[in-house]
Amino acid sequence: MVTSTRASRSLPWRSATAIPVRDARPWQAERNTTTRRIPLAKPAPTVPWGDFRPKAFVGEVVPFRITAFREGHDLIGVQLRLTSPTGDVSLHRLRSLADGFDRWETSVTLLEQGLWHFRFEAFADDFATWEHAAGLKIAAGVDTALMRETGARLFDRAAAERSRPAAQRRALKAAAERLRDPGTDDAAALEIVHDESISSYFHERPLTALMTLGDEHDLLVERERAGVGAWYEFFPRSEGARRLKDGTIKSGTFRTAAKRLPAVAGMGFQVLYLPPIHPIGTLNRKGRNNTLDPRPEDPGSPWAIGSAAGGHDAVHPDLGTLADFRAFVRAARAEGIEVALDLALQAAPDHPWVKEHPEWFTTLPDGSIAYAENPPKKYQDIYPINFDNDPDGIRAEVLRIVRHWIAQGVKVFRVDNPHTKPLQFWEWLISTVNAENPDVVFLAEAFTRPAPLQSLAAAGFQQSYTYFTWRNTKTELEEFLDGLAHETADFLRPNLFVNTPDILTEYLQFGGRPAYRIRAAIAATAAPTYGVYAGYELYENVARPGSEENIDNEKYEYKLRDWEGAVDRGDSLAPFLTRLNEIRREHPALRQLRNLSIHWSDDDAILVYAKHLDAALAPDGRSDTVIVVVNTDPHSVRETMVHLDTSVWGVPPGDTYEVEDLLTGARWHWADHNYVRLDAFTEPVHILHVKEPR
Amino acid sequence: MVTSTRASRSLPWRSATAIPVRDARPWQAERNTTTRRIPLAKPAPTVPWGDFRPKAFVGEVVPFRITAFREGHDLIGVQLRLTSPTGDVSLHRLRSLADGFDRWETSVTLLEQGLWHFRFEAFADDFATWEHAAGLKIAAGVDTALMRETGARLFDRAAAERSRPAAQRRALKAAAERLRDPGTDDAAALEIVHDESISSYFHERPLTALMTLGDEHDLLVERERAGVGAWYEFFPRSEGARRLKDGTIKSGTFRTAAKRLPAVAGMGFQVLYLPPIHPIGTLNRKGRNNTLDPRPEDPGSPWAIGSAAGGHDAVHPDLGTLADFRAFVRAARAEGIEVALDLALQAAPDHPWVKEHPEWFTTLPDGSIAYAENPPKKYQDIYPINFDNDPDGIRAEVLRIVRHWIAQGVKVFRVDNPHTKPLQFWEWLISTVNAENPDVVFLAEAFTRPAPLQSLAAAGFQQSYTYFTWRNTKTELEEFLDGLAHETADFLRPNLFVNTPDILTEYLQFGGRPAYRIRAAIAATAAPTYGVYAGYELYENVARPGSEENIDNEKYEYKLRDWEGAVDRGDSLAPFLTRLNEIRREHPALRQLRNLSIHWSDDDAILVYAKHLDAALAPDGRSDTVIVVVNTDPHSVRETMVHLDTSVWGVPPGDTYEVEDLLTGARWHWADHNYVRLDAFTEPVHILHVKEPR
Repeated sequence: MVTSTRASRSLPWRSATAIPVRDARPWQAERNTTTRRIPLAKPAPTVPWGDFRPKAFVGEVVPFRITAFREGHDLIGVQLRLTSPTGDVSLHRLRSLADGFDRWETSVTLLEQGLWHFRFEAFADDFATWEHAAGLKIAAGVDTALMRETGARLFDRAAAERSRPAAQRRALKAAAERLRDPGTDDAAALEIVHDESISSYFHERPLTALMTLGDEHDLLVERERAGVGAWYEFFPRSEGARRLKDGTIKSGTFRTAAKRLPAVAGMGFQVLYLPPIHPIGTLNRKGRNNTLDPRPEDPGSPWAIGSAAGGHDAVHPDLGTLADFRAFVRAARAEGIEVALDLALQAAPDHPWVKEHPEWFTTLPDGSIAYAENPPKKYQDIYPINFDNDPDGIRAEVLRIVRHWIAQGVKVFRVDNPHTKPLQFWEWLISTVNAENPDVVFLAEAFTRPAPLQSLAAAGFQQSYTYFTWRNTKTELEEFLDGLAHETADFLRPNLFVNTPDILTEYLQFGGRPAYRIRAAIAATAAPTYGVYAGYELYENVARPGSEENIDNEKYEYKLRDWEGAVDRGDSLAPFLTRLNEIRREHPALRQLRNLSIHWSDDDAILVYAKHLDAALAPDGRSDTVIVVVNTDPHSVRETMVHLDTSVWGVPPGDTYEVEDLLTGARWHWADHNYVRLDAFTEPVHILHVKEPR
Repeated sequence: MVTSTRASRSLPWRSATAIPVRDARPWQAERNTTTRRIPLAKPAPTVPWGDFRPKAFVGEVVPFRITAFREGHDLIGVQLRLTSPTGDVSLHRLRSLADGFDRWETSVTLLEQGLWHFRFEAFADDFATWEHAAGLKIAAGVDTALMRETGARLFDRAAAERSRPAAQRRALKAAAERLRDPGTDDAAALEIVHDESISSYFHERPLTALMTLGDEHDLLVERERAGVGAWYEFFPRSEGARRLKDGTIKSGTFRTAAKRLPAVAGMGFQVLYLPPIHPIGTLNRKGRNNTLDPRPEDPGSPWAIGSAAGGHDAVHPDLGTLADFRAFVRAARAEGIEVALDLALQAAPDHPWVKEHPEWFTTLPDGSIAYAENPPKKYQDIYPINFDNDPDGIRAEVLRIVRHWIAQGVKVFRVDNPHTKPLQFWEWLISTVNAENPDVVFLAEAFTRPAPLQSLAAAGFQQSYTYFTWRNTKTELEEFLDGLAHETADFLRPNLFVNTPDILTEYLQFGGRPAYRIRAAIAATAAPTYGVYAGYELYENVARPGSEENIDNEKYEYKLRDWEGAVDRGDSLAPFLTRLNEIRREHPALRQLRNLSIHWSDDDAILVYAKHLDAALAPDGRSDTVIVVVNTDPHSVRETMVHLDTSVWGVPPGDTYEVEDLLTGARWHWADHNYVRLDAFTEPVHILHVKEPR
């Protein structure tokens, strides 16, 4: 049943709804109207922020939707014409959602990276119209002869199509004869109307009339890591740092940090993000806890980039050489880990740019250069860039820097504060870099209002930090996760970092160890990309008073941590994170974004969601369903009923099925209403795999 | 403060936010990005159904909205550049809605019919940025000298603009000197920062940088009657019909029907819609109550159009001649009433088309022509048109018919069942007719699903019947009215008919006389266009059993009614309808669509909404506010508190103001929380006018 224009290799998509490709019928003349013969409106995927391309990633299941309807009572069919980047064309039949809003849908797994094109096509479905009318009218004894002859003519028309298999043509011809045979009574004719094999012939190869072609749209499919990955963040200067006899600390290096790579890989992380690795400014350097009076041995914030030792293209001398960095990248790759660098477009006062290109900054009336500020607050270790004085010069320099790091083996960039730079600049940079190298991924640290956050994603960022850390209650999470999966997924891919060097939420500060398990479990299962900043596994939860960030913030000092000791003492979350990442690897449903459905519980803290992948869309041809039930209150034991729409995973209401808790191995028989007890202190979450009936 | 490029006549708009027109600064080079320097997204008014133009009507207050934001902390300004059909250009400053979503808005009353163009323009507002920073920093003693000099330079820049009034330039120059004067202490400098007159200079004529021009959009402004009107519907054959001695009824004529025009005008109705006035088919004619066995004297349904006496361009001989019809139209016009005709594109079996153009119908395999049907139901008095066999021929014929009636003085058409004809056809017909005559108004009787209903409006219909008759509870009406005013108003104008010959809802059947008052009051006040089908004022509420239409439906027979006797007996709703139409005439807020706000009550049946018009946008320069409080339960007396957001009409929370009930003349002092008692049987609704403080 599945065919395509290209024969002799594997297909670039998976779909349950593929239909044979035929040449499109000639397009009805348009007569200067915007409307076409069969109206098609509100196509998806789409981007609501200007004229941008929607996005997907290799292996993503993408729902394609359109509003299509026809005047009067006659029925229509709708199909999707997909063209892969290498020119493979396929057709996929949409199903009516029958929601009263004339929406149609089909889902396709896209397997080829690059720019796809898609178009919706609608047509009068003469067979379906007849099937509906004949079913009613022959049963009612109205116009039976007419209905039989009308059907016979449709069967004749289909039987005459040489593209149909010979057996099908013979069957259609015989059915036409039977419909016309006066010896066939109406009851027998009605059986032909409802004959499922005949109906399937027409569903696969519809007899189309009034074929209407929609506009062609683009869909950019990026590599899998743009959409799927478990991230870990560490400061390389802390990894292998050690205290000297004089009490000061000797910086870790790329070489010492590389020793921790096997542990990071062992936990199952796939991307390792390093805060800026460049020389750190000495002028106005910040001391511990963001103080203005550093001690000589304080290393400063890595985001205060640039000193006499170099700028954005240089490596901090304490970390080693550029060759050391390349070796680190290679060592990571050997462990299956990609290294992500920080791209923070700002300068310490002693960055080489300041002397060479003062025009890249804002000069004040008193001749000084403007510091970063949020009036009346000032950040005296950082000069922000002024993108308007010499836009061409800045663009060329940033492109040079990005190319430089790509040349060192880096293909993932975490962009610091992109919302403080022009959106136009990012659109240009990302499209320029991706034109040279489509594998490069940019993650936007856009902790800002929804409009700029979403616009940055729409304009090209492959991933975005989100408001996840500030969505902690059941109702907040329901709305937030549903929005990620169903409102913004066409252009915004969330990276659910559970913490960052800047963010230690009150939930983590005051939620104890359960809070750490709860948040990690949600992040790892609700979205295909999530991240953890080192120290999370040690439950580091003491904030600088009055702030939402860690006390003794690693941004301003080295952190010496005893990773292995914590594991040995049973004081580490690492085994739990390791298991979460294993579960993610074993369950393809968790590596999708748009397949999340919210379910219900009677408790105001028990959050329930499921992720389901249909067999026809799955990599191994087997369906996969994971149900997550979380107690979002880290301080209590909760008992409640959960209520599931089991039809999402194909189980009729009331039927039972077996589930296995992937964390504990416990197995239960579940139905649509189930009892749960979640003890925040011992077992705050169930991650349940729905076992397929054997 | 208000100027425009055209000097010597009245302006084609009203606005509280107009600013002087200056030449736009050169547009920043685009560098091949979709994003411009300051992102502009999600403009409104807009149409979500394909590439159609949003609509407004002459005198309509249109909110223009855009999402605009800038990177970082600097402030922006946004303005709307409006170009009227005759080329008058005006600029209107938008205000930030400060809703966290970076939405900006301004409202303008559009007074000129034709195609307007609008564009949003955003710019860095250097004064506003300085005002914000200087206010904080000088107060905090940070960078005071720098802030003062920065401000002085801005004032110098503005003072150098020759377009500013001389007095303003002098004041700015003096302020710059004071800021620079060491004798001015920081407290005095802070006063300059917060000086409202200086701030107003910059608000009126902002110092702009990074000026970014959005795309140009169209907005079609149609004549007032496209959006505002009180409609009445009667069957001319019933008006002046009389019973003969043999018991049969002699048809009314245009001449006898004209005698009722003064009464219709006296009730305050402005549009009189006539069901089809053409010859009625004799083949398969329907009898009383839609029966298949008519008596010889049964007149048949006017929608079964066409007989030997002619088709869609002819007048039913019983009604008179074409000249009689023209006289009727003239007589109506003399009463201030416009006549609307029905456009029902279908044919009785004896319509001349059937012989002359069998290709305009669907011929079945048995050689017969297909009746209209909804399988297994059949409508044997009607052949539907097949628009695909000879689209050009049908288009030419329909255009000929429409032009024919326009030539008789008709400019309003109520289109029967437009959703059973191709959307493409309507877009073509309406745009073709309006290109010749932009005053022609088409009302869509699209009782169908939301997608086709909204698409027909988007594709050109000036007005639409809606789901109003089926929205009867408080919560249904809240959602429905809010949607009309705030979701679809850019392209869909509702005509809230309270009943039709096809619709007698259960609410009216079983709600008694209170139901008739309640529904009329809501229809007349919630939307600027509403309608009443004759008989409503007589509380005709007996349905054909099992149906939602009147028994002895006027579609199939003459109705003899005693209008005046009912009034004399106190059995007519006409006086109430008359008062509603007076209130509509006196209150311009009621002649707007988008100015509705939903308010609250503690009772599950008491619906509360208000319509407000700002003084600057009103025709007489005076603000107008009407609060409607309705008991939607026609069977009970309700007492409750209503809760109002009085800021909508400019009253601070807690302040009192006087209201007058426009139905009873009662006056009360109201605040934001008020007691009401609504007795469905005597006084189911308050229509309260907010008195302006003298």
